Formats: sequence, structure tokens, C-alpha cells
Amino acid sequence: MVRPGGRSARVQASVHAAVRELESEVGREGLTVPLVAARAGVTPSTIYRRWGDLQELLSDVAIERLRPETAPEEKGDLRSDLEAWAEQFLEEMASPTGRAYIRDALLGDPDGSNAGQCSAYAAEQIDVILTRAADRGESAPDVEMVLDRVVGPVMYRILFRPDGLDAAYAHQLVTGLLGSTDG
Amino acid sequence: MVRPGGRSARVQASVHAAVRELESEVGREGLTVPLVAARAGVTPSTIYRRWGDLQELLSDVAIERLRPETAPEEKGDLRSDLEAWAEQFLEEMASPTGRAYIRDALLGDPDGSNAGQCSAYAAEQIDVILTRAADRGESAPDVEMVLDRVVGPVMYRILFRPDGLDAAYAHQLVTGLLGSTDG
Repeated sequence: MVRPGGRSARVQASVHAAVRELESEVGREGLTVPLVAARAGVTPSTIYRRWGDLQELLSDVAIERLRPETAPEEKGDLRSDLEAWAEQFLEEMASPTGRAYIRDALLGDPDGSNAGQCSAYAAEQIDVILTRAADRGESAPDVEMVLDRVVGPVMYRILFRPDGLDAAYAHQLVTGLLGSTDG
Repeated sequence: MVRPGGRSARVQASVHAAVRELESEVGREGLTVPLVAARAGVTPSTIYRRWGDLQELLSDVAIERLRPETAPEEKGDLRSDLEAWAEQFLEEMASPTGRAYIRDALLGDPDGSNAGQCSAYAAEQIDVILTRAADRGESAPDVEMVLDRVVGPVMYRILFRPDGLDAAYAHQLVTGLLGSTDG
């Protein structure tokens, strides 16, 4: 269905752009499918056919915006790389915008594919960090362990227990995973 | 607003009961506020006034059903108590019913209070287990640490990465927290 550069890709790009523009103009609560369609220059039925409803469209837009734009920063050793990444991940996800995208991604996602994509983004970033560590000859945990020890607790607290989400907490999770430097 | 035994409590009980009955009769997709109101013997405006919309009502019903009915089973030592609890928690939350309640609890929860209640239930159960361990003279982690190491990864995987959620995984998380018996 999606041919790069074809009509399908153009429709997706213009509908996503329309959502982003209208969100900043009328706010989330003011969004409707007819409004998005008019701005994107498509018919409402094009949107209903492709996305089902507004919630599913917002979930797709959220996943696009949760996609990391760059590889994780390279600091030179595993602990520094993981701390920097965890701190930035927490800061982005726990921001009001990040929280809204996470909610959107989960809500309009009947088959779980967008939530899975969200987790795959984190796993890919972590894999880059762990591969660099292995290339430097450092011993490193595996990706699933980092998801359990760092990403899982951060996302759980964002959704269910949102107090105390700061850089110190991100560092504490990395210390719990790698051990204390003076321990 | 809520006077135990008063009209408000009776309305809540009958509306919650109506949701549960109708869910099993017409399914989730068939639920509407007028249908629930008719079954509960109240006007639709009573529901809109008190709950806002169907999603917020479903979130409240989900939280009621996620409330633990009994204290955690006492096996006699911290590791056995935590393993048994983690295994049961994972099994309940990862079941189709559990997943539906978690989704409902999150979706119709604009101020995050129901998600917070969901986390508070887990924290209370864990606190019972840790207090028993302390009473037996065992050393034990704190509640927040168990949330980070056991509850967080379980809930993260249920929502974002649902493969491999079995009893062995629950035990592995407890081993990661308490250390290996032969390690």
C-alpha cells in the first residue's frame, strides 16, 4: 500500500503535517477528522479509510514524533553513554509533549503495533550503545536487560507514578544496572 | 460528594454493576452511556455529570476490578513471597482481561488519578510482603526498588513489548532484585 514517493506517501505526509499544524493552532481538543482533511486537501473518507478514526491517526502521528532523530551521543565508555542516553530519554518522555505522545501512541493502537514500534526505537538506540561498548572491549549487559532495568521503570513511572522523574533517578537506574563505581 | 451508603454510593454501585453486566451481554464495543443508564436506572445526564464520558466511567470500573481482593500469600520467606506475588501479578495483568482493564484505566484518566491508584495497589501489596520479611528479621529492599525492578518491567512489557511474559520471567526479575541463591 505504501509506495515511497507515491500518492499514499504524499497523503500520509500531508495528513500528518495537517495534524501538527492544527494542534498548535486549535489545540488537541479542537481536532476533528473533517478539519484535518480540509487542511490536508483530502476527503474525510480518505482519512477514515486509512486510519479508522482520529485516535488511530493521532497514534500514528505520535509514533512518527517519538522516532529518535539522531544516534545516541558517544561519550567514550558504557556508563557515560548509558547515563547520557537515559537522562535524555527520561527528559523527553516525561515532558508534557512526550507524555501526550505516549498516551496517543497507546490509545489509538488496537493491535499494539505502535506501542511495539515505540519499544523498538528504544531497543535500537540501546543496541547502538551496547555495540560500541563491545567494540571497545567493555563487558555489557544485553538489550533486554537494559529495557528491564532502565526503560521499563521510566515508562512505568511516567504512566502510573509520575513523581521524582529527574536526572538523578535516571542515573540511579544505570547505577543499579552496572553497579556502583565505588562499590 | 461520596457519602457511604448514601445516594451517591448507590448510584456508583448500580452504574458499575450495569457496566459489568452489559459488557458480558453486548461486549465492550456495544456499550453506550444511554444503555448503561437504562440498566442502572439512572438518567444519562447523571452519568455525564459524574463521569464526564464513557471512557472515564470505564476507567473507574477498571480500577475497581484491579483492586486486589486478598493480601499476598505468605510462603515463609521473602524470596518465595515475592516470587509467588510477582508470578500472580504478571498472570493477572497480562491476561486479556487484565490488559483490557489496564488500557481502560489509562485511557479515561485525564488527571492520572486512576493510574496512580493502580500503582498504589501494587505498592500496598509489596509493602505487606516487605513488612513480613522485616518482622522475620530478613533484610529487604524498599517498596520503590521492588516497583522499579519487578512491577515496572512487567507493566512496560505488557503495554509495549508483550512477548515472553511468563512465570519464568517473573522469577527472573525477582532473582535480579534479590540475587541468585547460588550466586
